[in-house]
Amino acid sequence: MSAATNHHIAVIGGTGPAGMGLALRWARAGETIIIGSRDAARAGQAAEIIRQRVGANAQVSGMENAAACAAAELLMFTVPFAGQAALLKELKPAIPPGSILIDATVPLAASVGGRATRTLGVWQGSAAQQTAELVGKGVSVVAAFHNVSADLLNGNDDIDCDVVVCSDDPKATEAAMELATKIPRVRAIDGGKLENARIVEQITALLIGLNIRHKGHGGIRVTGLPETAYRVGPRS
Amino acid sequence: MSAATNHHIAVIGGTGPAGMGLALRWARAGETIIIGSRDAARAGQAAEIIRQRVGANAQVSGMENAAACAAAELLMFTVPFAGQAALLKELKPAIPPGSILIDATVPLAASVGGRATRTLGVWQGSAAQQTAELVGKGVSVVAAFHNVSADLLNGNDDIDCDVVVCSDDPKATEAAMELATKIPRVRAIDGGKLENARIVEQITALLIGLNIRHKGHGGIRVTGLPETAYRVGPRS
Repeated sequence: MSAATNHHIAVIGGTGPAGMGLALRWARAGETIIIGSRDAARAGQAAEIIRQRVGANAQVSGMENAAACAAAELLMFTVPFAGQAALLKELKPAIPPGSILIDATVPLAASVGGRATRTLGVWQGSAAQQTAELVGKGVSVVAAFHNVSADLLNGNDDIDCDVVVCSDDPKATEAAMELATKIPRVRAIDGGKLENARIVEQITALLIGLNIRHKGHGGIRVTGLPETAYRVGPRS
Repeated sequence: MSAATNHHIAVIGGTGPAGMGLALRWARAGETIIIGSRDAARAGQAAEIIRQRVGANAQVSGMENAAACAAAELLMFTVPFAGQAALLKELKPAIPPGSILIDATVPLAASVGGRATRTLGVWQGSAAQQTAELVGKGVSVVAAFHNVSADLLNGNDDIDCDVVVCSDDPKATEAAMELATKIPRVRAIDGGKLENARIVEQITALLIGLNIRHKGHGGIRVTGLPETAYRVGPRS
């Protein structure tokens, strides 16, 4: 196990499949995790499930979303696009200035009753840029973890996937890259500015289509870059 | 070397880097290639360069674009987005009904003086769908080869990249998948409908950004699908 980042990480939307999977993987890596939910009791139950899987040493608790935001320096948002903007407006006062917010949201057309293989156009360019606009300048937004299968995150195996990280704040990029490499075999790649998130978000819709067509748990690897482009974690 | 497809393949825009690279790889695999260009003399020179690299047995010739279209059943379009629509309108009468047109065009913002790391919105959804509208119903359009580095295609090494193929015509998908696997180590994946090309096209802009940032020749591999999802060619 690698050294923990010493961040308190709030996983907002942490009772959903993607949030549970990330919380599980990071708790296993020794991180301190706060599961956030609208319902503190549900958050506590989710934390208990993770504790049972990881073991008694797991640092994981559950809180209502606003309390989770206030208690953490690092916020991981894994909420459906349909409710994301309203939730961000509601939680904005609870997010401490200087926080890093990692956004994995994909604007799937399923958000409005359409298909999960198609996306909606977001005025700002991407869900992540909408998030950045909503939280304001005091919070650093970084887009990451869109393309990692939630099913695989909730399993125990190494994951054959790269995480492309996009942000306008190098410190936020660094934090997300470090967390990505806590997941065994995942590599992190600096994908440049936050605006590039629009492409990384779209890839998820393509992967969902491939999963339906071919019955898999698709991910991506970026090939052809020099070794220095890939941040790798310790092997499990 | 694997068996050739017995198609005559016209590479329209075949004097550019992507077209030259694909023509080189397919000529090596024993395919019959017609390089298309506005200028028959330039097309002939490009064909000669490929013949010198592949050897005297290479089946490769050069023709003016319309003649190349008329002489082939399989058309590979590797033209810049800026000139694609006008060229398609011009060539439409020369494209035989029943042809398969493989489109690798990416609507980069560079087409209008912007960045190659950004894309333009195309009214039809993607460059490939614009192509389909322009050529009409008698021609089957398939989108493929967007994400394979032109630099690597023009080299001699195996290529660590998957080709996601999108079309509404299964025969066109089949033809493009077969040609993809003629490139050593490339795998082909059925990416579903032509409308999905919009995401595959965008990935190229992301890869261009990664290439600039990290100084590489980026490609993608799709992970996590069952073996049956990947079409692989013979090993070189």
